[in-house]
Amino acid sequence: MNTSLTVDVNCDLGESFGAYHLGNDEAILPFVTSANIACGFHAGDPSVMKKTVRLALANSVAIGAHPGFPDLVGFGRREMAATPEEVYDMVVYQIGALSAFVQAQGGQLHHVKPHGALYNMAAVNAGLAQAIAEAVYHVHPNSILYGLAGSELITAGQKLGLTVAQEVFADRTYQADGTLTSRKQPHALIIDQHEAVAQVLRMVQEGKVRSQQGTDVQIQADTICVHGDGAHALEFARILHQTLTQEGITLKAMDTV
Amino acid sequence: MNTSLTVDVNCDLGESFGAYHLGNDEAILPFVTSANIACGFHAGDPSVMKKTVRLALANSVAIGAHPGFPDLVGFGRREMAATPEEVYDMVVYQIGALSAFVQAQGGQLHHVKPHGALYNMAAVNAGLAQAIAEAVYHVHPNSILYGLAGSELITAGQKLGLTVAQEVFADRTYQADGTLTSRKQPHALIIDQHEAVAQVLRMVQEGKVRSQQGTDVQIQADTICVHGDGAHALEFARILHQTLTQEGITLKAMDTV
Amino acid sequence: MNTSLTVDVNCDLGESFGAYHLGNDEAILPFVTSANIACGFHAGDPSVMKKTVRLALANSVAIGAHPGFPDLVGFGRREMAATPEEVYDMVVYQIGALSAFVQAQGGQLHHVKPHGALYNMAAVNAGLAQAIAEAVYHVHPNSILYGLAGSELITAGQKLGLTVAQEVFADRTYQADGTLTSRKQPHALIIDQHEAVAQVLRMVQEGKVRSQQGTDVQIQADTICVHGDGAHALEFARILHQTLTQEGITLKAMDTV
Amino acid sequence: MNTSLTVDVNCDLGESFGAYHLGNDEAILPFVTSANIACGFHAGDPSVMKKTVRLALANSVAIGAHPGFPDLVGFGRREMAATPEEVYDMVVYQIGALSAFVQAQGGQLHHVKPHGALYNMAAVNAGLAQAIAEAVYHVHPNSILYGLAGSELITAGQKLGLTVAQEVFADRTYQADGTLTSRKQPHALIIDQHEAVAQVLRMVQEGKVRSQQGTDVQIQADTICVHGDGAHALEFARILHQTLTQEGITLKAMDTV
Repeated sequence: MNTSLTVDVNCDLGESFGAYHLGNDEAILPFVTSANIACGFHAGDPSVMKKTVRLALANSVAIGAHPGFPDLVGFGRREMAATPEEVYDMVVYQIGALSAFVQAQGGQLHHVKPHGALYNMAAVNAGLAQAIAEAVYHVHPNSILYGLAGSELITAGQKLGLTVAQEVFADRTYQADGTLTSRKQPHALIIDQHEAVAQVLRMVQEGKVRSQQGTDVQIQADTICVHGDGAHALEFARILHQTLTQEGITLKAMDTV
Repeated sequence: MNTSLTVDVNCDLGESFGAYHLGNDEAILPFVTSANIACGFHAGDPSVMKKTVRLALANSVAIGAHPGFPDLVGFGRREMAATPEEVYDMVVYQIGALSAFVQAQGGQLHHVKPHGALYNMAAVNAGLAQAIAEAVYHVHPNSILYGLAGSELITAGQKLGLTVAQEVFADRTYQADGTLTSRKQPHALIIDQHEAVAQVLRMVQEGKVRSQQGTDVQIQADTICVHGDGAHALEFARILHQTLTQEGITLKAMDTV
Repeated sequence: MNTSLTVDVNCDLGESFGAYHLGNDEAILPFVTSANIACGFHAGDPSVMKKTVRLALANSVAIGAHPGFPDLVGFGRREMAATPEEVYDMVVYQIGALSAFVQAQGGQLHHVKPHGALYNMAAVNAGLAQAIAEAVYHVHPNSILYGLAGSELITAGQKLGLTVAQEVFADRTYQADGTLTSRKQPHALIIDQHEAVAQVLRMVQEGKVRSQQGTDVQIQADTICVHGDGAHALEFARILHQTLTQEGITLKAMDTV
Repeated sequence: MNTSLTVDVNCDLGESFGAYHLGNDEAILPFVTSANIACGFHAGDPSVMKKTVRLALANSVAIGAHPGFPDLVGFGRREMAATPEEVYDMVVYQIGALSAFVQAQGGQLHHVKPHGALYNMAAVNAGLAQAIAEAVYHVHPNSILYGLAGSELITAGQKLGLTVAQEVFADRTYQADGTLTSRKQPHALIIDQHEAVAQVLRMVQEGKVRSQQGTDVQIQADTICVHGDGAHALEFARILHQTLTQEGITLKAMDTV
């Protein structure tokens, strides 16, 4: 047991829209330390954003902007051939919109994490990664850029001198090169909760993950992504929170500069 | 001639959207001192917003957020039965989005002026006026709230201690109670440019306007609204700028706190 | 018991959108005889529309287009100052879109019922009512126009020679002039299910409803609106269906011309 | 000169939106024989659609639906990772919407041509091509499917027994395999109008086009795409119309079944 270990647990929140309710925000908040709040492009609307910011502040959870593609019907999960400049613009816009609600309630923006297809594209496309990092740098240089551990987005943030948080997944398997196993492959998901918790523990405590090829891969686990939707997700977040705490790992959001 | 007189001339800018071009932003900028930039709900998109902020900064024109109803097809000109809370939320959102582009380019948000139907409703509806004023107060308390001279929006801003700018119109006629003549009435518009300039001059120099009923009405003219679209609009802005300058009136945006 | 009595029971369906699930469409379908399917402006998207048409056809429920204002975030419940021509255009568009899915699956469009604020405005505004009726007349003259019993929309449909269905509400109280009690008033809603069923029965069997003022009002009940969302709504639809059937009233959609 | 030759000249129309004006619809109509009318997803709105259908009917120009991706800010030009089923749904929806305006004005839908990124993706992706062809087949089996000559979309339409129109471009160069030279390559566009007209003439009269590699490629030219926007486009359409007519080629839309 290493008492000096610290990790962040993040979750996507504020994904409701108008009359549409999505997620289980109030229930998941006690088990996470940072919240990625949708900004109105792929989910969320101004009223939902205000309420979600309020909820996060009331739970002392760090608040992040969660910008996505302008694709509400596709929930931001469909890749779009947007240029780096268009991506820069849409990220600036969404960070600003979310920040206004944070400021109006006396809080501070803590981080930025792109959503869905934008997250995935920025993990492998250096141009898009740079565009997102620059948007953060120009609007909230003190906030932390969340990205897939070892991805282009992390590299782009580091180049600009941003604080970055390398994100790992509890319920996804990894390849020998450190990338996630594609969801189109078998064994992409870890169904067994104990196995998922064990993978997280090893990533946090040893900085390693066992790949699908059987080799160990170095991985930095600054923040763990959990899901807020569904009964199992909630249960998993609870177990993960409990296990990490029992292991003496401190759950807290990273400090901003 | 009173050399101490000062007035602001404002114009709606950044109303293009995607492939759609609207307005004559570059041409009008030399003749105005503050710009109301659309925020993506009734017009504008993130890329247009960025470019328009750049253009305004390059012309040393004060930048304002120009929030409107979420009605792109109606250009924000159709009244919507939104609640004060919904209006508060949509104004916070839009101020934040525009501010992010201003901040990214090293500028400062100078003012907020609601657009179209939102502007008109806030002029007479105290609840909506208060919602807008509170949004400004919570997000950018130092910025100036622009509203129709003598309207509920001005009153709401003053109650919160915001700096307000009372807006007058060069090309609209007034009623004995200080309100604008409805566009549904004849003689609502002043077609003759010299007549329009003369009305502005008197409002600025004497604080009075001759109403359609023939009586003089007290009016405070902190800022004059000009239009950016169309050849006549541009010509009028040029003449107005020239005449005001010749009369020794200083054209400049109001100072923020 | 009058075996010749017939009435339609209609319900709004297909209100999901993208990742957002709303309503209980499969559960409510056995208890209704016609479905008003959202057309993508206030709710619904192309994929939801296709699935909902399929579901309605599988349940032999008559399919109607349910056009609304272009206000997804407000679920079409906020009044918008659209002109009659704009309303005509948006209704033509939405009827066409829904009809395409019906035709693609070998069905036939049975009716058109405006949604939310558009329904309410068309009940009292003759210009908007006429615009909607003309849209139906020009695109699907054989389909039935659903509107509030005794409203301007019914009148407008009759003037054009459309078949109309006068709609009554089980859970709303009525005024002495036959209008619905405003939701802003107390006693606008009937909470007690037995009371609601009794009101419906009397409307169907006697053509009368007891107003809040204590007088009886003549009312024609061609179709009864039930809600699809919520456990109570489903239970009520079941009870209503059972009671009407026990009373010997035939539940079926009106015949088209 | 072969007097039995016939060809269609098509143009994208109805691309305005709300307050935004785009294109030169009235000016181009005399020089084309079929119009592809935007359906509200990438451009156009219900009011624009109505007016454009009216304009096309008044000019006896064949009317086609021009469905695109739901990406107004990107004008439908950005590829989106939509599934074939999503594409089927969005095409059914848009065909239906446009058809309603055609029917309301007593016309008949003549063809369907996908727009922008959807057109390009359907040219090479058999799954998307099939989805679009099926949408046409299910909603308007008698209408003609327009697609890039020799593309997957043409093949998909033929498999379903649809009448297809193979489209060629006057101002684009071709590769030895019959595909268009990518716009990212030099010499992708033909700037010289006489050269463009000559290329069209040869495609229509000989069924051949000289590729960038210097070889002749077989190509079927059922319909020629011209642009409606810009002074040069209009001038080109006029010259093309004149030249084709002088050569004894009949300009007319293809007959529907």
